Amino acid sequence: MRFEQSGVFALNFVSSPGSGKTQLLVRTISDLKDRFPISVIEGDQQTSNDAERIRATGVSALQINTGKGCHLDAHMVSRALAELTVAPSSLLFIENVGNLVCPAAFDLGEAHKVVVLSVTEGEDKPLKYPEMFAASDLMLLNKSDLLPHVEFDVGRCLANALKVNPDLQTLVVSARTGEGMAAFYAWIEARAARAAARSARAAAAK
Amino acid sequence: MRFEQSGVFALNFVSSPGSGKTQLLVRTISDLKDRFPISVIEGDQQTSNDAERIRATGVSALQINTGKGCHLDAHMVSRALAELTVAPSSLLFIENVGNLVCPAAFDLGEAHKVVVLSVTEGEDKPLKYPEMFAASDLMLLNKSDLLPHVEFDVGRCLANALKVNPDLQTLVVSARTGEGMAAFYAWIEARAARAAARSARAAAAK
Repeated sequence: MRFEQSGVFALNFVSSPGSGKTQLLVRTISDLKDRFPISVIEGDQQTSNDAERIRATGVSALQINTGKGCHLDAHMVSRALAELTVAPSSLLFIENVGNLVCPAAFDLGEAHKVVVLSVTEGEDKPLKYPEMFAASDLMLLNKSDLLPHVEFDVGRCLANALKVNPDLQTLVVSARTGEGMAAFYAWIEARAARAAARSARAAAAK
Repeated sequence: MRFEQSGVFALNFVSSPGSGKTQLLVRTISDLKDRFPISVIEGDQQTSNDAERIRATGVSALQINTGKGCHLDAHMVSRALAELTVAPSSLLFIENVGNLVCPAAFDLGEAHKVVVLSVTEGEDKPLKYPEMFAASDLMLLNKSDLLPHVEFDVGRCLANALKVNPDLQTLVVSARTGEGMAAFYAWIEARAARAAARSARAAAAK
């Protein structure tokens, strides 16, 4: 099932472990929850720590434990939807298992994959894990507040990402300080509005 | 005529006066001229200052003076091509007249419009001149070296641009220091390679 047909704008967040995905979601939810209904699916091999952090923002979150699995798949997401109420005209954030390989190949019905890379991980990651950067429509380069303290050339990192995917949109953000996050919210709002208009037209044409 | 059919990757650079387009082209040409044949068409109401700055890099440049006109059009470009030799499998940079309004509506046969905005111009320009940002595929936010000295919120500016065009790719660069330019070059190379492959396939299919 594609979420767009039911008026839900779904983003599938992928990254290495420790890139700051959960903190990024917590900030995004806190800043957008008055404008959109939001629900979250959390994927991890074990623990429900992340779902608890998300629920503390006041939105619904369901934790999926994949056990030995290194990614979410559409079947797991579909079972999760039996337990999680996802409102029409809402945002659904899916936080995938922290892994730059396996989740690239799995379509969860999302509108876009968003790959999160942090400035502590090195500029070469897009070249080492090209499938993930090729499968994503947006890259968030997170932890920009650490740039003065690490050796990391933003231009070189973005160059590596664009070599792998010349259509990739990129934004430099800090989920901790909020730097650059306004641009990510504008991207979400503009894309969600366009998807909603498209699904309304498709429904009217039936 | 679309340039892609003849294997030429053409970019149409648009901006306000003073955004640093010519300096950006001079640096780009100096850094890429050993990898690609490059030629340049310069548009200005008067003077051939810009073409002279470009020729100093060693590539061919033709100046078009538009007189009272506020933009280049396809007819002017087509006449320019009678005088300027544009090699196959080359890059053609067209620097439009400095103006954030008129050039938006004119297709010069380019692969992409690239809008250049500088951090001294204010974050609101994409909202004030939405047609230009909607018509462009890439926005270069130039003069990033001045960020410590001006009040300019990069995130807010990119948010305004994405509101107008949610598909826009954005890069923060300094043509003066070279910061971020590697990402722009990677974008050019990856896009030019893809366009060349497409035009070779189209030629083979004939």
